[in-house]
Amino acid sequence: MKVKTDKGTKEYRTVWFDRESNAVRMINQPLLPHRFEIIDLKNYRETASAISNMVVRGAGAIGATGAYGLAQGCLAFRGNLKDFWKHVEKVYQTLKNTRPTAVDLVNGMDFVIREVKKGNSLEECQELAIKTSQKFADEDAEHCKMIGEHGEKLIKNGFRVLTHCNAGWLAFVDWGSATAPMYRAKRKDKEIFVFVDETRPRLQGARLTAWELSQEGIKHAIIADNAAGYYMKRGEVDMVIVGSDRTVAETGDVANKIGTYEKAVLAKENNIPFYVAIPMSTLDWNLGSGEEIPIEERDGEEVLFAWGSDGKGERVKVRVANASSLARNPAFDVTPAKYITGIITPRGIFKPEELVKLKD
Amino acid sequence: MKVKTDKGTKEYRTVWFDRESNAVRMINQPLLPHRFEIIDLKNYRETASAISNMVVRGAGAIGATGAYGLAQGCLAFRGNLKDFWKHVEKVYQTLKNTRPTAVDLVNGMDFVIREVKKGNSLEECQELAIKTSQKFADEDAEHCKMIGEHGEKLIKNGFRVLTHCNAGWLAFVDWGSATAPMYRAKRKDKEIFVFVDETRPRLQGARLTAWELSQEGIKHAIIADNAAGYYMKRGEVDMVIVGSDRTVAETGDVANKIGTYEKAVLAKENNIPFYVAIPMSTLDWNLGSGEEIPIEERDGEEVLFAWGSDGKGERVKVRVANASSLARNPAFDVTPAKYITGIITPRGIFKPEELVKLKD
Repeated sequence: MKVKTDKGTKEYRTVWFDRESNAVRMINQPLLPHRFEIIDLKNYRETASAISNMVVRGAGAIGATGAYGLAQGCLAFRGNLKDFWKHVEKVYQTLKNTRPTAVDLVNGMDFVIREVKKGNSLEECQELAIKTSQKFADEDAEHCKMIGEHGEKLIKNGFRVLTHCNAGWLAFVDWGSATAPMYRAKRKDKEIFVFVDETRPRLQGARLTAWELSQEGIKHAIIADNAAGYYMKRGEVDMVIVGSDRTVAETGDVANKIGTYEKAVLAKENNIPFYVAIPMSTLDWNLGSGEEIPIEERDGEEVLFAWGSDGKGERVKVRVANASSLARNPAFDVTPAKYITGIITPRGIFKPEELVKLKD
Repeated sequence: MKVKTDKGTKEYRTVWFDRESNAVRMINQPLLPHRFEIIDLKNYRETASAISNMVVRGAGAIGATGAYGLAQGCLAFRGNLKDFWKHVEKVYQTLKNTRPTAVDLVNGMDFVIREVKKGNSLEECQELAIKTSQKFADEDAEHCKMIGEHGEKLIKNGFRVLTHCNAGWLAFVDWGSATAPMYRAKRKDKEIFVFVDETRPRLQGARLTAWELSQEGIKHAIIADNAAGYYMKRGEVDMVIVGSDRTVAETGDVANKIGTYEKAVLAKENNIPFYVAIPMSTLDWNLGSGEEIPIEERDGEEVLFAWGSDGKGERVKVRVANASSLARNPAFDVTPAKYITGIITPRGIFKPEELVKLKD
């Protein structure tokens, strides 16, 4: 997607691979929106650190980084084929241990290894690693683009769309999930306006989604999470599009960033269509309902403090809450299917109860 | 209410008058929750500055400060009775101009002036000013206490109450409106737990309500505004109590801090009783419905930045949002009566449609 730099506007992906220097390159996301910097990861250990330090976040982007990191490890190897496989195992484990619960990280690496195994020489294996990791990243971008193609049809000229958190291109390789329909609409010259929920406690809306929309030149306003209902009730929101971390295929119940459930209930109360945009990898075929999704409770510090720029380019942390109080901090909530108008996937738009049809 | 200081726990009001030094004294609220300090306002001009600089905020507390400030101006006067009234007019206008739309400020001063007019000498007038301003403040505290007496009956032992923003004693002279039932319940040895919405953008929940509850030793947790629905859906919230800036007597529609409407819709969706606690002065007898209440849109900076303590006791401001994005910042929303279970007033608990009965 487009990024405005000192030297004009340029197309970037969230993460990519530079074969010449055998480096994984990515946007340094913790610096956003206050500074745009590309970080060069010179070996798979540096790539692993970038994942564990959350320089990259979002299922799709982490998956591609895992695939690239594995290829990077393969390419750096010098020696015989037997030692190569020992080395690959070490690279795999190092990368895997960075985010033990990130399903897409393992998916990305397994996708690469399956192909690498077909190689008959070190050179062939290395070549396959490079090609396959690139294919994995390209497919992520392509799937998001397809979400955009389908979802764009829902957005009429002049629509005011509300989104929550960041299911944008920074969370994937390109395009994003919830944002893809907006970006497609913009490129088809539709006039749109986006209400960006700030999304406390980590403020991904105000920081990342707002930055993305600015770069693409899409009109938007950041609003307090508390104000979403206000604009819905006034009839100023035409539709809501959010992403999802896990969607139960059986029922269409959706787990997503905390606050999504609130916006879904408010949308239904005000007769506003509520859509969830997801890549296929987000579908969970094992659970019976959303009630079974485990909800991560994160450190209360995220609620008690805020992080931002001090105006001199430094990232600072300030305590916003009373010091003798504790916080509770559920990171996700589950929105039951009854509040969801449709699920936008790379394979089309489905009602929540139709997702089961997608089983191959 | 109780405040823990270096020298143990002491009872404080938000604002009071010290006759000996002719000073208005108040809790310096912008320093909370990071520092507890009493500020001494030595003359009515200093008192006026404290109102305009929001050292004191909240309808009840501002009303009492206006009354005290007027008395303070009266008491400082030396001269004849004719010049006295010129002086009073100047004091009145100075105080009034601090917050042109604060109805309670004018109410408090008018309450005092009506009595002062009965005086036949400067000394009598001054004595009446002191006594009447004290009466006004005492009545504010008494009304809040009555809200507590009535509302406490709704809170069963073990209840988990959710509140939004700060309708606590810091916004009044004592007790608060939404918090009064909780404080009464605590003093009757009921075990309660309070979910404190952080209340972006100004975070009055995390800063002020959490501080109050800590001081009174009431168990609580600060939660992101986004998480209120999550706890409601899980059945962990037994009731909601909020305050109100303006309540339409005709319909029972309630204007309150932005986000109140969201919590009300979520409470109804989850069959949780939703109560609004108000002093009588909040009732608006002129409007036909909540739709007619004008909504103040405040500076977007409140959304784009956060204020907090840097850990060294300094209050700092950090930009949390993308620099090239703007924000919209409605300060209030209107909750239609259909979402409200009951209105807790000093004269009892009423259904929204019963408020009209209160007309004298």
